[in-house]
Amino acid sequence: MMTLRHTLAAVALVLAAAPVSAAEVERWGTFELALPGPADGNPFVEVTLAATFTHGPTRVTVDGFYDGDGTYKVRFMPTEVGEWAYTTASNRPALDGKSGRVTATPPAAGNRGPVGVRNTYHFAFADGTPYVPVGTTCYAWTHQADALQRATLAALRGGPFNKIRMCVFPKWYAYNRAEPPCYPFAGTAPDRWDFDRFNPEFFRHLERRVGQLRDMGVEADVILFHPYDDGHWGFDRMGAAADDRYARYVVARLGAYRNVWWSLANEFDFVERKTDADWERLVRVVTDADPYRHLCSIHNGTRLFNQTNPRLTHASIQNGSAVADFGRAGLYRDVYRKPIVFDEVKYEGDFDQRWGNLSAEEMVHRCWQGAIAGTYVGHGETYREKPTEVWWSHGGALRGKSPERLAFLRRVLEAGPADGLEPIDKWQDERTAGKTGEHYLVYFGKEKSGAWPVDLPRAGVDTPLTLTAEILDTWNMTVTPVPGAFTVKPAGRYRLAADPPARIALPDQPYLAVRLRVVK
Amino acid sequence: MMTLRHTLAAVALVLAAAPVSAAEVERWGTFELALPGPADGNPFVEVTLAATFTHGPTRVTVDGFYDGDGTYKVRFMPTEVGEWAYTTASNRPALDGKSGRVTATPPAAGNRGPVGVRNTYHFAFADGTPYVPVGTTCYAWTHQADALQRATLAALRGGPFNKIRMCVFPKWYAYNRAEPPCYPFAGTAPDRWDFDRFNPEFFRHLERRVGQLRDMGVEADVILFHPYDDGHWGFDRMGAAADDRYARYVVARLGAYRNVWWSLANEFDFVERKTDADWERLVRVVTDADPYRHLCSIHNGTRLFNQTNPRLTHASIQNGSAVADFGRAGLYRDVYRKPIVFDEVKYEGDFDQRWGNLSAEEMVHRCWQGAIAGTYVGHGETYREKPTEVWWSHGGALRGKSPERLAFLRRVLEAGPADGLEPIDKWQDERTAGKTGEHYLVYFGKEKSGAWPVDLPRAGVDTPLTLTAEILDTWNMTVTPVPGAFTVKPAGRYRLAADPPARIALPDQPYLAVRLRVVK
Repeated sequence: MMTLRHTLAAVALVLAAAPVSAAEVERWGTFELALPGPADGNPFVEVTLAATFTHGPTRVTVDGFYDGDGTYKVRFMPTEVGEWAYTTASNRPALDGKSGRVTATPPAAGNRGPVGVRNTYHFAFADGTPYVPVGTTCYAWTHQADALQRATLAALRGGPFNKIRMCVFPKWYAYNRAEPPCYPFAGTAPDRWDFDRFNPEFFRHLERRVGQLRDMGVEADVILFHPYDDGHWGFDRMGAAADDRYARYVVARLGAYRNVWWSLANEFDFVERKTDADWERLVRVVTDADPYRHLCSIHNGTRLFNQTNPRLTHASIQNGSAVADFGRAGLYRDVYRKPIVFDEVKYEGDFDQRWGNLSAEEMVHRCWQGAIAGTYVGHGETYREKPTEVWWSHGGALRGKSPERLAFLRRVLEAGPADGLEPIDKWQDERTAGKTGEHYLVYFGKEKSGAWPVDLPRAGVDTPLTLTAEILDTWNMTVTPVPGAFTVKPAGRYRLAADPPARIALPDQPYLAVRLRVVK
Repeated sequence: MMTLRHTLAAVALVLAAAPVSAAEVERWGTFELALPGPADGNPFVEVTLAATFTHGPTRVTVDGFYDGDGTYKVRFMPTEVGEWAYTTASNRPALDGKSGRVTATPPAAGNRGPVGVRNTYHFAFADGTPYVPVGTTCYAWTHQADALQRATLAALRGGPFNKIRMCVFPKWYAYNRAEPPCYPFAGTAPDRWDFDRFNPEFFRHLERRVGQLRDMGVEADVILFHPYDDGHWGFDRMGAAADDRYARYVVARLGAYRNVWWSLANEFDFVERKTDADWERLVRVVTDADPYRHLCSIHNGTRLFNQTNPRLTHASIQNGSAVADFGRAGLYRDVYRKPIVFDEVKYEGDFDQRWGNLSAEEMVHRCWQGAIAGTYVGHGETYREKPTEVWWSHGGALRGKSPERLAFLRRVLEAGPADGLEPIDKWQDERTAGKTGEHYLVYFGKEKSGAWPVDLPRAGVDTPLTLTAEILDTWNMTVTPVPGAFTVKPAGRYRLAADPPARIALPDQPYLAVRLRVVK
């Protein structure tokens, strides 16, 4: 019986919405090779499997994984169009030396490849299209009842968010005291687990959800570890060997999904049983296992991780204050010289806890503050109206007033410079960002100034610029063109002033901005 | 003749105000061993000399240096009281294997040893006394005419400053277009130098000045490299071998002065001919050569150095904005987890350049902003009244109004918690610092609130506190006790409020603070 199974030919499948030829996959799609193999012993720890895919001089080696029931899989995301040849390597003859070919076709519409860093502080898809993260959190959405998960997908489909932070492990915390439908390991709930044996059903479910996010253009910021367990299940204290095996298993299963980002942890410093050295090791394990080098980060509670580690592609930061006023958020850019993503600046909601009771106005203001500093701010929502359906953790329906305003912000950013909003004069004018000589966005925050004298940072501009202006009401989501055009000229060492002098009248409201674009 | 000189006995000298026995030096004083040796060839590069000092299990090895005229010296700062034995090692017989003993006596009054880091973000002398840096800059003061140097010393003697940033190399820059009286290398001004041969006279002068600073309680933040040369002398482009030799020579000569701090550079990123790797190497060279591990930093222009390097004891930062408003400066603490010293936040003065035209009020305000964030801000002064005597660079006389206010700030900080002012609730209440449950300093900055409701961050306090209060006028330098005492109790999760409610009436002025101390 074993012999018969082991001699079955390899079966190649492609994960995609529509069935396609077994040996064809679009660029940045997921090619899957399924191989029958031994089911005896403990395949999760005893069997090694990898495959190397080659295309001209390009070689990509990926780990395979055991998917239960005697089936092994290798997943691969072709990074270039054309024919790829592969061959497997295993410590089991049934899985070793299997070879074949797969053709990568041009990507379908909407498939722009994985997101990477662009222009030091910003992001773009692999096809070069700028990517402006407007993220949210639904930490435990895949651990809720199926109907709620479907509601979450529906809300995301219609919403502004193109990134979601989500945990692999379930969550045990305030508002989160329910057992999940399924667990990542073999064993018995709540805390008798065999960390040597994964539960493939759990991961197949996770992958299905990640694939659904991909298909609606949402990046999955997959959180590998978190402290919201506190020993209840013990996934926060498995030990180094189990942690590493788990991390590699997740990468083997999910690495070929183009919309995956790795977040080593949420609030790493609140995980009591891991040291900084453990986290550094896990960063190495994940990035070594991932040939595509998906975006990779680690998120803090109150103590920042050493984000200078070059394997961390961006700094994922929690700070409840950095985007509450001008001139703060940009300091992190200077320090880390990589994109700064504030994955938690407190949440819109009505929780007693101060981290969960921002007004919608404040949530939107903070996202604008971050943008004007050349950084990116994530959303979260904590209304306790239905304590088992709080968006921040469970997903479901969005109740707040900030999401549609963040859609407006996203449109503004997507219409901005392709290289991202940059400070024009970083330590002198914290309200103005854009691209010198081309595009200026001046955000007034809570100030109600009545009028704005047209006056911009000079930043090396030597010749007059002619600009058109629009008033942006970031709360009411309006863009009002200002009639005519303005010419600005150097006025002293540091500024450009309108000549003739000009003032733009502003409504008596907070949260306004002026956008100026150079007339070519 | 050479033989005769080489057989002369080693001569031990002690640098100190009063003559003492040749083999006795106070703890943290400077013991100097002078040895005759070869003057032929190039002693600066051909002769190696080091000495190892032992005291029980403690071994300290220091490099010697050639001081010209056939004299070699070894300087040593005993870190413990008691008898130390030494022996030399050299590639020249005349200097090799010389041994002797020196007794370290208890330090004299005012000698508290070198400054080190205390409580992660703060400083203390080696004897445990807290050290609160109130620094200034006179970058090129040792390169001015002698009378001006003496004026600088007189101003420092009467002023608030206990740290001065000063360059080894002369400065060629706006307001700095004079040749110095003396140069660090053999050769011909302006740019024909033999970087292989130091000019001992130059360094003896520098040491004398550092010693005078020591004797008046001023730390010398010695800047090894800077960009204000631009090839005029070429000290900014000597090449790696000469840079390293120079750095080691400075450490050999000055390392035994207890008041020395190493600043690898001022505005490192403006030095065009050095890479980040060069700076990392120079940090290693300096710290490897310095057995005492004096405080060591590197200062930026607009691009921050990677201050996470553990050999950098504190982050020396230029930022013209970080202390201009609340909530910014503290971000650097979180990132670097070491003391943050803002060595340039713009200067009090009337220069055209914006980095040199702060009002005195703004200079003082920025120093308070930094202090309340748990960081330290340096002073500088740029009045152009006498363009050849601008304090910032030349020294001379202080003309501004901020120094006496910084003396007031220094007194407030020195009367504060021994472990330094710490944020009480770092991302929530950026105006309050001190020590939870003991000492609170609430700074109002430019706000004129009229009255302050007694209300403090709770930060884990569970029991009522009784406090006395004082109003501090940071500009007018007054401390006004508020009659009576206040009892504060937990009011919700996050605050302590006065019970019964209380308000402290404040004058209608900016730049006020309230200091509250718990009655024991």
